[in-house]
Amino acid sequence: MTQKNSHIITAEPGGLAILMTRVFDAPRELVFKTCTDPNLIPQWWGPEKFATTVEKMEMRKGGLWRFVQHGPDGGEYAFNGVYHECLSPERLVYTFEWEGMPGHVLLETVKFEEYEGKTKMAVTSVFQTVEDRDWMLKSGMEEGSVETWDRFAELLTKV
Amino acid sequence: MTQKNSHIITAEPGGLAILMTRVFDAPRELVFKTCTDPNLIPQWWGPEKFATTVEKMEMRKGGLWRFVQHGPDGGEYAFNGVYHECLSPERLVYTFEWEGMPGHVLLETVKFEEYEGKTKMAVTSVFQTVEDRDWMLKSGMEEGSVETWDRFAELLTKV
Repeated sequence: MTQKNSHIITAEPGGLAILMTRVFDAPRELVFKTCTDPNLIPQWWGPEKFATTVEKMEMRKGGLWRFVQHGPDGGEYAFNGVYHECLSPERLVYTFEWEGMPGHVLLETVKFEEYEGKTKMAVTSVFQTVEDRDWMLKSGMEEGSVETWDRFAELLTKV
Repeated sequence: MTQKNSHIITAEPGGLAILMTRVFDAPRELVFKTCTDPNLIPQWWGPEKFATTVEKMEMRKGGLWRFVQHGPDGGEYAFNGVYHECLSPERLVYTFEWEGMPGHVLLETVKFEEYEGKTKMAVTSVFQTVEDRDWMLKSGMEEGSVETWDRFAELLTKV
């Protein structure tokens, strides 16, 4: 388990899931809107040293999404998936695939809950195999996740 | 673990997945084609006492599917999802949701492998929570799965 401020990541040994929760000091509507605005994605999605391009973000059932990260060394890392559900401002359910490992797909569910003006976001990622899940953990995903959502929290203070 | 003929279902206690494998005595192209033909779905999908209607089956990335089962008592049970990948004749990846429990989504991966003229099909279903997975197991899914794929095996001898 990784914990930094309100950012908690859990991944049970031998399991298929990675769970992340974080509390943002903003109302749910604003958190959802900021999180799903394609124009804002480049300002928080992924590590800061990568420039992210939103190629597609069709936020509806069956819509496709594709983001490309451009690394400082010129490398490109593309990610894509399809939306199963976009229920504003409550829930997102979509598939996620890194194109560097085609065929290895995960299902992500993002839930937004508001209490006392703050919003708790819970992201559940379930993988097809434990190997895929563990590969993601070893890829530096935990540090990347903290940086991503730190950037998002910072952005929330400005929108 | 349930095993009947070549039909094997495994679900680790406390886990998020249900795995099903089955060997069909037919070449992979035929198994894939039969499995993905909307006109044939009513002949094998689900228990025989239910009449299944294919409302949508858009077999491409981002395509939607929706099947409705009409029970002998007049009840209707609808299922839907989106296709993440349709790679003929190798692999299907799609989401699956029973409309009786909206928001509870699973990711299914179906792999088709051929050896010596037979085809091994492996279906991996991963759920968002252990509770959802266990609910599916308790719902009679195992018996339903055996009946479904028995019907499919029978159909394969006729197509």
